Amino acid sequence: MQKTKDIAIIGSGLVGSLLAIYLRKRGHEVTVFDRRPDVRKVEFSGRSINLAMSNRGWNALRKVGIEDEIRELALPLDKRALHVNDKPLYFQKYGKEGEAIYSISRGVLNRKMIDLAEETGAKFRFEEKVWDVNLAEAKIYTGESEKAEWQEYQFDMVFGADGAFSRVRHKMQRNSRFNYSQDFIDVGYKELTIPANEDGSHKLDNASFHIWPRGEFMLIAMPNLDGSFTCTLFMPFEGEVSFEKIITEADSEKFFSKYFPDIKSDISNLTRDFFKNPTSAMVTMKCYPWTYWDKVALVGDSAHAIVPFYGQGMNAGFEDISVLDDLIEKFEDDWERIFKEYQEIRKPNADAIAELSYRNFVEMSSKTANSQFILRKKIEKHFAQKYPEKWIPLYSRVTFSDKPYADALAIGDKQRDVMDKVMNVEGIEAKWETQEIEDLILKLIQAH
Amino acid sequence: MQKTKDIAIIGSGLVGSLLAIYLRKRGHEVTVFDRRPDVRKVEFSGRSINLAMSNRGWNALRKVGIEDEIRELALPLDKRALHVNDKPLYFQKYGKEGEAIYSISRGVLNRKMIDLAEETGAKFRFEEKVWDVNLAEAKIYTGESEKAEWQEYQFDMVFGADGAFSRVRHKMQRNSRFNYSQDFIDVGYKELTIPANEDGSHKLDNASFHIWPRGEFMLIAMPNLDGSFTCTLFMPFEGEVSFEKIITEADSEKFFSKYFPDIKSDISNLTRDFFKNPTSAMVTMKCYPWTYWDKVALVGDSAHAIVPFYGQGMNAGFEDISVLDDLIEKFEDDWERIFKEYQEIRKPNADAIAELSYRNFVEMSSKTANSQFILRKKIEKHFAQKYPEKWIPLYSRVTFSDKPYADALAIGDKQRDVMDKVMNVEGIEAKWETQEIEDLILKLIQAH
Repeated sequence: MQKTKDIAIIGSGLVGSLLAIYLRKRGHEVTVFDRRPDVRKVEFSGRSINLAMSNRGWNALRKVGIEDEIRELALPLDKRALHVNDKPLYFQKYGKEGEAIYSISRGVLNRKMIDLAEETGAKFRFEEKVWDVNLAEAKIYTGESEKAEWQEYQFDMVFGADGAFSRVRHKMQRNSRFNYSQDFIDVGYKELTIPANEDGSHKLDNASFHIWPRGEFMLIAMPNLDGSFTCTLFMPFEGEVSFEKIITEADSEKFFSKYFPDIKSDISNLTRDFFKNPTSAMVTMKCYPWTYWDKVALVGDSAHAIVPFYGQGMNAGFEDISVLDDLIEKFEDDWERIFKEYQEIRKPNADAIAELSYRNFVEMSSKTANSQFILRKKIEKHFAQKYPEKWIPLYSRVTFSDKPYADALAIGDKQRDVMDKVMNVEGIEAKWETQEIEDLILKLIQAH
Repeated sequence: MQKTKDIAIIGSGLVGSLLAIYLRKRGHEVTVFDRRPDVRKVEFSGRSINLAMSNRGWNALRKVGIEDEIRELALPLDKRALHVNDKPLYFQKYGKEGEAIYSISRGVLNRKMIDLAEETGAKFRFEEKVWDVNLAEAKIYTGESEKAEWQEYQFDMVFGADGAFSRVRHKMQRNSRFNYSQDFIDVGYKELTIPANEDGSHKLDNASFHIWPRGEFMLIAMPNLDGSFTCTLFMPFEGEVSFEKIITEADSEKFFSKYFPDIKSDISNLTRDFFKNPTSAMVTMKCYPWTYWDKVALVGDSAHAIVPFYGQGMNAGFEDISVLDDLIEKFEDDWERIFKEYQEIRKPNADAIAELSYRNFVEMSSKTANSQFILRKKIEKHFAQKYPEKWIPLYSRVTFSDKPYADALAIGDKQRDVMDKVMNVEGIEAKWETQEIEDLILKLIQAH
């Protein structure tokens, strides 16, 4: 058993709440600060993207004994449903039989996680803004405003779980030799809603992740427990078809009629929500180091914010906590060692999932409807089913495995090289199911 | 003539002072704020790397009529002097006859620039710390501390010339869609001094840039007007031979005896300076955008901090100002246009010199003493002398030209490809001056 520490967690989001539960189970005193009000007492903001919980997320919940309670909030999605205009709906299974990602509303999950953390005895201080952190002494300073009088708190340790624009990291960033980057993509997103049918059922298949790929932009929809879907429109900020071009309600009506005729009438309050909900930006944030002595550590988005196109942001953050807990088990009171190993183990994996997420941004918007891409996926799947021990698809390695993201990226690159060669075979469209192609893949795999 | 604006410049360093002079000549009201004391009234800090003024820097000074006064502070260096243990001193000319870089003490130059800016009527407010900037309204807030009462100033326009850790940029960085990165290299530096001989003369050739390349680390020395040399030791922070390994005075004595026996006795107060002067870090900082409406613009290091290994940091900053002034000439009162074109023109060039500077970090420390590298330079030079219109070496394009850095980088990459092929010719060591090689280079150039 570790010596009890008095620990502050900055940020009561998903990763902060999970960390609170883990640390309480280890017997530590835990106080969670959040500048925002208690998410259980406010309406949701209209800037959420639904979450896809996958293997890594579930693992982290299972280890701390809260998997079952969260499962009740989630809907399994075992496939993509591709909506291409003037074509029949096309389904693409995510993995093997029984493999699925799970749609959860961020707000609903966050509320539950805070409840669970409170049950373990974690204290929450909402609407208390942290303005400064003394890294070397694990002191934090809160107050009404940056200029108001501050309250000083002394802890043994401070965790920054305060997201992509972390105040804790911000303080570390002023140190010499702190590497940091934030890169925004030129695409923004906006939340929209498809409400339930009058009988409470879903308007679209509720076991699918729905995508309307349109090249430079796309719409996605994920089901909620109450029969509604949370939709997200991803689109460039500027350019020919872009957020800046949609100024009036008539513009938005026209836009949806043209590009999403099958779904337009289902999106409730389309024009109202379009202009009420913000257009949000997406960023890849990388930094290093993630820790300061044995005093301060960053977890989740504050250490590694990624674009949402692999559905791994929360999963990666939850895995941080699970890895941290393994190290606590291993090194007990040697927090300096725990923090050092934590950042060394997680950094390459965070970089890998950042890269994979960025690549998926391109893939999802432009390639999912492409016939070459669909064929490529078919061939991979065909081969993987026949030789499951020789070919685990990249998506499965990321989503249905707990092996390191960095390995998934490296192996995925090799598989891509193999598939590039396969797709270059003359007449591949006609003979992709032949023994010739199977032998070619076997030979190419061997060569690696 | 532009309409007179009331302009604040944050930072009284080299670029801030030059900008003040340019803007005063255009008739604007100029107030320069600096958090530090007046550099004319304090001792130098012992963390300086001497500057190498080259073509771009001189151009910017000439355009505003202060070139001659600055020339008086500078010593021309027309070659590198390579000090390799147990080998004779080896000289490497930088360019053609008459081409040289100019060694200037940063402190001496900064004092002069502030004098000149004051003569034009710019006001300086030293030891006044800017804590916040209202970007949209061009207001700045100063005070004793972040928490103290602040003084508000209203300007028409604010320039951030406050260096790699710019407060102005810091404010811009909190905006959505502001891209930013800071990458530290694992090498640090420390300033040391070789004093003048008793008669005031230099202890080493004073028309050379002296380098002691030692693989992973190196020492450089640049002459000052007073007969002394400012030396800089570049060395990894950690590792086998590194700053962290030199803890006692005996360690530093041993280090210099082993690696710099020829110069050890000349470095004055070796052990005292070694421990008195700080070990400083070096960063490449990139960001975008550089401007905010027609209200705020970043110049110099605050927009693009680079590692010092191409000697172009100040030159690039001065060129910013000269380009900005060209745009003022062109677009007069349309400051929004001026700022927009300024950042679009300068950004690719800033990225290019950042890349070139980083590459030179590798080249200077590890390759300058390498016989293959020396041969490569010889061949390039031989060819360039014969065909000066066909081959301008990369170093000359950067240093002795005012063509865009981005072009220098692109052409340099092509030349590198050519030279890679030339160096692969069997027996190149013996026949590098032959017609065969000359014809080969001519053919390879044509192919590009």
